[in-house]
Amino acid sequence: LPRLDGHRLEGLIRAEFERAGLCEESATWAARGMVETSMRGIDSHGVNLFPHYLRAVRSGRINSNPAIRTVQRRAATALLDADHAIGHHAGSAAIALAMELAAQAGMGAVAVANSTHFGAAGFFALQASRAGHIGFAFTNADALIRAFGGRRALFGSNPICITAPMEGEEPLCLDMTTSRVSWNKVVLGRRAGEPLPPGLAADASGAPTTDPAAAAMLEPIGDYKGYGLSLLIEVLCAMLADGPVGLEILPMYRAPIEARRRISHFFMAMRVDAFLDLQHFRSRLRSVVERTRAEDGGGRVMVPGDPEKRAFAARQREGIPMLEEPWREFLAISPAFESALVS
Amino acid sequence: LPRLDGHRLEGLIRAEFERAGLCEESATWAARGMVETSMRGIDSHGVNLFPHYLRAVRSGRINSNPAIRTVQRRAATALLDADHAIGHHAGSAAIALAMELAAQAGMGAVAVANSTHFGAAGFFALQASRAGHIGFAFTNADALIRAFGGRRALFGSNPICITAPMEGEEPLCLDMTTSRVSWNKVVLGRRAGEPLPPGLAADASGAPTTDPAAAAMLEPIGDYKGYGLSLLIEVLCAMLADGPVGLEILPMYRAPIEARRRISHFFMAMRVDAFLDLQHFRSRLRSVVERTRAEDGGGRVMVPGDPEKRAFAARQREGIPMLEEPWREFLAISPAFESALVS
Repeated sequence: LPRLDGHRLEGLIRAEFERAGLCEESATWAARGMVETSMRGIDSHGVNLFPHYLRAVRSGRINSNPAIRTVQRRAATALLDADHAIGHHAGSAAIALAMELAAQAGMGAVAVANSTHFGAAGFFALQASRAGHIGFAFTNADALIRAFGGRRALFGSNPICITAPMEGEEPLCLDMTTSRVSWNKVVLGRRAGEPLPPGLAADASGAPTTDPAAAAMLEPIGDYKGYGLSLLIEVLCAMLADGPVGLEILPMYRAPIEARRRISHFFMAMRVDAFLDLQHFRSRLRSVVERTRAEDGGGRVMVPGDPEKRAFAARQREGIPMLEEPWREFLAISPAFESALVS
Repeated sequence: LPRLDGHRLEGLIRAEFERAGLCEESATWAARGMVETSMRGIDSHGVNLFPHYLRAVRSGRINSNPAIRTVQRRAATALLDADHAIGHHAGSAAIALAMELAAQAGMGAVAVANSTHFGAAGFFALQASRAGHIGFAFTNADALIRAFGGRRALFGSNPICITAPMEGEEPLCLDMTTSRVSWNKVVLGRRAGEPLPPGLAADASGAPTTDPAAAAMLEPIGDYKGYGLSLLIEVLCAMLADGPVGLEILPMYRAPIEARRRISHFFMAMRVDAFLDLQHFRSRLRSVVERTRAEDGGGRVMVPGDPEKRAFAARQREGIPMLEEPWREFLAISPAFESALVS
């Protein structure tokens, strides 16, 4: 597989976005978010999505010059209208506002209306936790999780992300979909031509399937629990931002590429030092985590975010591996991407 | 089975608590929380726990005259020291403070140190949602969820509860443990002598079991996802309140009844009208919920909290059913409980 240097790739993606007319701020946040996500090993939500995002910029689904504005604001809460900005930009503006509110109030919560796909939720919550906050990030998505007891998907595989600052390493980071796997992993399974493990997906009639090409919906974690979480995350996102919910949201890939999706997000940043000494918290969390990692002699038990930290270290050494199909798309966009190849 | 009238039972429980020396405010909140929880059908966290709580009051594990005090406070955040109050009182004080903060700031987040078992998380979040807030309630507990990849439980089956106000009926209420079943359901299984469904529990060596008597730990929902959620809920509870985590917490039943457990909770209340018109939100949420309930012709798909609403309606008519063992315990405490029997 071709392997790409993350730093060079980020510059090239930013340049291609700007060449397509995307404003500098959007291009910068989107390139940073995508590359950081791929460096963390989350191939389903990182640079593999760049060709799709570029088409969405060119078609106008993503607004190239968004005027993100604050619609409501109190001491600890705000509602942003993202004006169809690329989600990485909208989300970064929202988590920055949440931290700004938290500076005085102790915490800030920001709902975002009229956004687009934002990649991995962890990208935003981590920004807050690197600055000493507990970070929270949620988004809705088109309907994809089978309703418990039903035969259709009514709500998205809406992710929940919570992060916390930790001594001496990147923050603790839980970033999970409420489905057993994310849809983009089905997409990668189709590209790789590999079957899915059983129990993860169902076809259009609601019958279980391991064929990624036949998969039409995903099974929630814990049956009614994952389904319930996806609905309540929808409440935090679309219901507070008054945007479309689940079935009302156009699908990411199958809808006309110029159609606007009006994705809603929800973010919170909570200053640890509003509760206790930040340094004490960071040290204690690290020691709880180290005790956990040492379980069973070590090496067997991880904490959330550990697989991503291992991937980050490996990809710093070896670059980001690309599957053949997205790599062909990158080269079709610009032969300049060759210059990011790790020699 | 004997069936008890909820209203009369609440008065009798309050009176017995006060007779044991518990202060009026603690007795009132605890009786209300327990009966409301049983009325909502959650037998594992309702009045069945009254004999245990009464022993904990008499032994001093629960402080009969707690001085709950605010240790830290900003515009939107606070840390409470519950002074070993019964959890129903500590949690109600905390959610009230969260709503007080939200009145000005739009939202409030309150961590609680040095508390005790609080029953069902929904009891607190519902108080916020009945007053127009999105409600959040979390607690930690002694270690009970098998660590993903490990053979021991390191963290509790820490619940996550999110509620939202809805037009014309009680709020939407998701209240779930991060394990596939709650521990108190294992306890009820032991009492009833019924085996557990497979895949829910493991014995002390970490091997799967369906025998409730052999069950020593619980399996998380979604494997690493439920385990990760339980750890991050621990961060929101014990790490912000600087209380004991998972393995450091004494077990509810097996520890000496006088030993204090220092349970930590975390609550948030967020005013819907800080984001958009409350009435619009309530109506729209109801219509999304009704659309969901009508799926597949109706009757098959529920939303979180629906089973509890059905149980509440049935128990208003027929009373709260009691298992034989707890009922004998009630009568041993006081023959006056006979007067709550539904004739």
